[in-house]
Amino acid sequence: MHDNATPQQILTAWAATLIDELVRGGADRFVISPGSRSTPLALAIARHPAARIWMHYDERSAGFFALGMARARRAPVTLVCTSGTAAANYLPSVIEAGLSHTPLLLLTADRPHELRDNGAPQAIDQIGIFGRNTRWFSDLPEPLDDPAALDHLRSVAARALAAAVGSPPGPVHLNCPFREPLVPDRRMLADYYRQERPAAARVVAGRRTLPAAVLDRLADQLAAGRRSLILCGPGCPDDLAEPLTRLAARLGAPILADPLSGLRCGPHDRSMTLTAYDAFLRDERFAARYAPDLALRFGAVPTSKPALLFLQRHAAARQIVIDGDAGWRDPANRAVELIHADPAELCRALEARLGGASPDSRWAQSWLNAERAAHRAITALFAEQAELSEPAVFADLAATLPDGATLVVGNSMPIRDCDTFFPGCPRSLTIAGNRGANGIDGLVSTALGMAAAGTGPLTLVLGDLSLYHDSNGLLAAKLHRLNATIVLINNDGGGIFSFLPQASEQDSFELLFGTPHGLDFRPLADFYGADFIRVTDRAAFRAALQTALGGKGLRIIEVRTDRAENVERHRTVWPRVNAALEHDGVI
Amino acid sequence: MHDNATPQQILTAWAATLIDELVRGGADRFVISPGSRSTPLALAIARHPAARIWMHYDERSAGFFALGMARARRAPVTLVCTSGTAAANYLPSVIEAGLSHTPLLLLTADRPHELRDNGAPQAIDQIGIFGRNTRWFSDLPEPLDDPAALDHLRSVAARALAAAVGSPPGPVHLNCPFREPLVPDRRMLADYYRQERPAAARVVAGRRTLPAAVLDRLADQLAAGRRSLILCGPGCPDDLAEPLTRLAARLGAPILADPLSGLRCGPHDRSMTLTAYDAFLRDERFAARYAPDLALRFGAVPTSKPALLFLQRHAAARQIVIDGDAGWRDPANRAVELIHADPAELCRALEARLGGASPDSRWAQSWLNAERAAHRAITALFAEQAELSEPAVFADLAATLPDGATLVVGNSMPIRDCDTFFPGCPRSLTIAGNRGANGIDGLVSTALGMAAAGTGPLTLVLGDLSLYHDSNGLLAAKLHRLNATIVLINNDGGGIFSFLPQASEQDSFELLFGTPHGLDFRPLADFYGADFIRVTDRAAFRAALQTALGGKGLRIIEVRTDRAENVERHRTVWPRVNAALEHDGVI
Repeated sequence: MHDNATPQQILTAWAATLIDELVRGGADRFVISPGSRSTPLALAIARHPAARIWMHYDERSAGFFALGMARARRAPVTLVCTSGTAAANYLPSVIEAGLSHTPLLLLTADRPHELRDNGAPQAIDQIGIFGRNTRWFSDLPEPLDDPAALDHLRSVAARALAAAVGSPPGPVHLNCPFREPLVPDRRMLADYYRQERPAAARVVAGRRTLPAAVLDRLADQLAAGRRSLILCGPGCPDDLAEPLTRLAARLGAPILADPLSGLRCGPHDRSMTLTAYDAFLRDERFAARYAPDLALRFGAVPTSKPALLFLQRHAAARQIVIDGDAGWRDPANRAVELIHADPAELCRALEARLGGASPDSRWAQSWLNAERAAHRAITALFAEQAELSEPAVFADLAATLPDGATLVVGNSMPIRDCDTFFPGCPRSLTIAGNRGANGIDGLVSTALGMAAAGTGPLTLVLGDLSLYHDSNGLLAAKLHRLNATIVLINNDGGGIFSFLPQASEQDSFELLFGTPHGLDFRPLADFYGADFIRVTDRAAFRAALQTALGGKGLRIIEVRTDRAENVERHRTVWPRVNAALEHDGVI
Repeated sequence: MHDNATPQQILTAWAATLIDELVRGGADRFVISPGSRSTPLALAIARHPAARIWMHYDERSAGFFALGMARARRAPVTLVCTSGTAAANYLPSVIEAGLSHTPLLLLTADRPHELRDNGAPQAIDQIGIFGRNTRWFSDLPEPLDDPAALDHLRSVAARALAAAVGSPPGPVHLNCPFREPLVPDRRMLADYYRQERPAAARVVAGRRTLPAAVLDRLADQLAAGRRSLILCGPGCPDDLAEPLTRLAARLGAPILADPLSGLRCGPHDRSMTLTAYDAFLRDERFAARYAPDLALRFGAVPTSKPALLFLQRHAAARQIVIDGDAGWRDPANRAVELIHADPAELCRALEARLGGASPDSRWAQSWLNAERAAHRAITALFAEQAELSEPAVFADLAATLPDGATLVVGNSMPIRDCDTFFPGCPRSLTIAGNRGANGIDGLVSTALGMAAAGTGPLTLVLGDLSLYHDSNGLLAAKLHRLNATIVLINNDGGGIFSFLPQASEQDSFELLFGTPHGLDFRPLADFYGADFIRVTDRAAFRAALQTALGGKGLRIIEVRTDRAENVERHRTVWPRVNAALEHDGVI
């Protein structure tokens, strides 16, 4: 920078330095919402030859869109917004990113110090606006014409990325105040981006590994277990499947694979992998009889309530939680040890030490028998039903989704039905959901962000309230010509409440919980240029799904269901499963 | 409570105590979003004989809906949501409520302590989730069976309301953890609400008044001013018009009345009230020549940029900011005194002391002449134009809105056009907008919340990006059968940016700032059961407005404009105003 730099030159060098350092650090994807104060960032990004931009006009949806993209890419995506409540709209996605360990970088433009908290328009308190939900926060200075300040800025950018992909990954917030003039110099930007310059420091982070003595002790404990169980919750590491399934085979330990664990579907060895446990653990006799003496848990707490209750009732089982990100995910306070070490490395190290394991062979066989019986009962039940139902949606999806497909599952009922009714398969299917905070918000955008990251065919299954909540998210499909299929399970309100004790409060139930809205979603699809088809039987659903998976653009397939009937339909499943367990002599 | 109360009984007494105390404190309006964890609150409210409920399925819109209702009622409205990201969706409206001094009470259900931050589902960190944006926050204990705890709960409820209506009013957050079972006892609730019981302490709050000696000094300073000016920004107190206009008459001080000041329209004396200043202060000759020696500012910082620049250039003027809520609203650092005293009381006290004021009579006359000239020029311009334009919308609204009507004005361009082109009138018109944080978010819900409070005919004017941003808010009109008219100014993107330096960045302008979306809003209206009419000339617009104002339900009148043409149209106004000033000899 020369001696008498103009404010525009100072601004330009500042914005270019920040953006260039992010791009060089691998964060070359930007989700930008329009605004004036954020002009230096937006233009510095638009002019960067390696940056890719997705515009999104609603910051709440933009936040989830970036989250979905970051999750699919396993790399930070940068959000950019202007000053004011724009930033506040990110909070739901920031919380989800924090809890689901998704790397996000938030650049919020701000007014300079002299226009804060003194009545200036569009100035809110953006300092730490996301509270304890970010991994790191820095309030940048206004652009400065000082080499040391620019060095610091580069470091802040590199550090922000390192914090976002740290352990655990999560959201990082940089608040960026700018003074007018806000338009950077076009030629200076181009010159800056052409020049070679040294990058800021990079973090080289190791994985947590345990000392040999501790591994020996753990291996001894595992070898002593005769009735071991492995539970894989949402968000297990990508590299876990192979070493864990080998460990499971050695231990004779069935793996209860949550739909979001990454272990339910794929080409890995699935001989010990169970996916019908949410159904058969409801059988009181099975749950009482098959008491584990050891339980290893990976990932987040499993979705299945029967599985959680099963773990709680067998408090004598030695429960060990493995968490490479040093968390404390033990809401029932049943863990005896929390192992903060890289899960895949740990599995390999333990398997290598497990020479003398002698598990009870009937133990694993009983669980595998239960899996087979439950799966057969559920399959038989579906075979009888030509009409569509919420459970059948997942059976049909499992039968239809091709190798390489991504399935995003909404919260409330869809994730529970997916858990119960989506069996394992050898195809590589990515099943995703927002199970950090389990909100019904932001699901459309999360899915479309994954689609924008270039996944295989993408299908989102969600309820009508979820689609309503993030209907703004649909705009991204139109603006960015994304290909995606939405399966809308429309039961005109909140279906999950019909399963809860609230359902008995008849006089207030529909008002407070059932919440019918009477919305016909076809015009909403028209508004956003999506295809819309309503199907009423399973053959039509599967046909629509087949067509949609090969098609272009956004397609909504609506499945209308009845909330009360849905409860009844679920209640017919469990006795059939129990009968099959009995028939096969499991209980 | 008896000795061996069950958990359900303890829960019931707790929820009933909290809700009953709120209702008795005057907060009998509840905006509830569905959820399970919030069941104790929702049912305690639904069963309260004096409580009124509005359900809203999107918490972001619900927050703004409650804000609009609270603003119209000038009383706290209570929001209720479940645990998880539901609360996070309130943040934009909480920030707006804090900055616009709107009383809101937020009851967020939470998981109990044993299910926080340990991997339990739908548990986020709700402690102080709104940061420094609330007036008060309390994390309640879980329901307790203890008379002292229930006394404390009553106090917390009363204190929360007192803080919400304090000085300044604003949002208050109570975080409410609940354990299962979550359904309160129906009969116990009814019994509780039938019983008489002593209320918690009430706050009796005085108004800030100045000592006589300070009033004398101020009156002397005012009397010495010969060229005084009064600026009324957004959010002046309701009782200000009468005492302020009397003081203005005595001082010979023109009143620059912001559209959101409450002084632009109404039956009060408007002989000194100016509304065309945003136009005529753009005349460099006028702005240079008419230098005030004293400026009194009430309310928030005015919307008009020419007015602000005018104040800044005349730094020699003694600028006094009157703020009954002890703020520091002086972004240009031009104030010599910030007077923290009740504005209406202060005006009365000063006027009573102003026996010997001898203002320069030509001073006020010049401003009134400028007002007349500018108004004439603008009126003449509109008279020539049969075609619709963004400015003409406000001229036609001013001509059409009946006594008692409410006009809610969107941010970005609409509020600026309203400022320039909506003249004063003797009808009682309420003009409202979200000028705390000036966001484009939440405007549909703010307006519908005001409509739900039972204002007169309600009209909302907003741009296409604002309507898109809060499109979910439209559901409230359908669910609660609200009557409202939306004037949608659709210029397919962000119109304000065409007025800014960014407009010269042609290659990136449409991508980053113009942001065209190509949305046809008719299907959106269909989705929410609203009438939709597109008008192309002013006669049709006025006719549609007349019809809509007398109608039922939600009606959207779309006015399509062109962003580039809109800039040109504005630029034709200023020379005409300048010429009129010249013609009338004002400059």
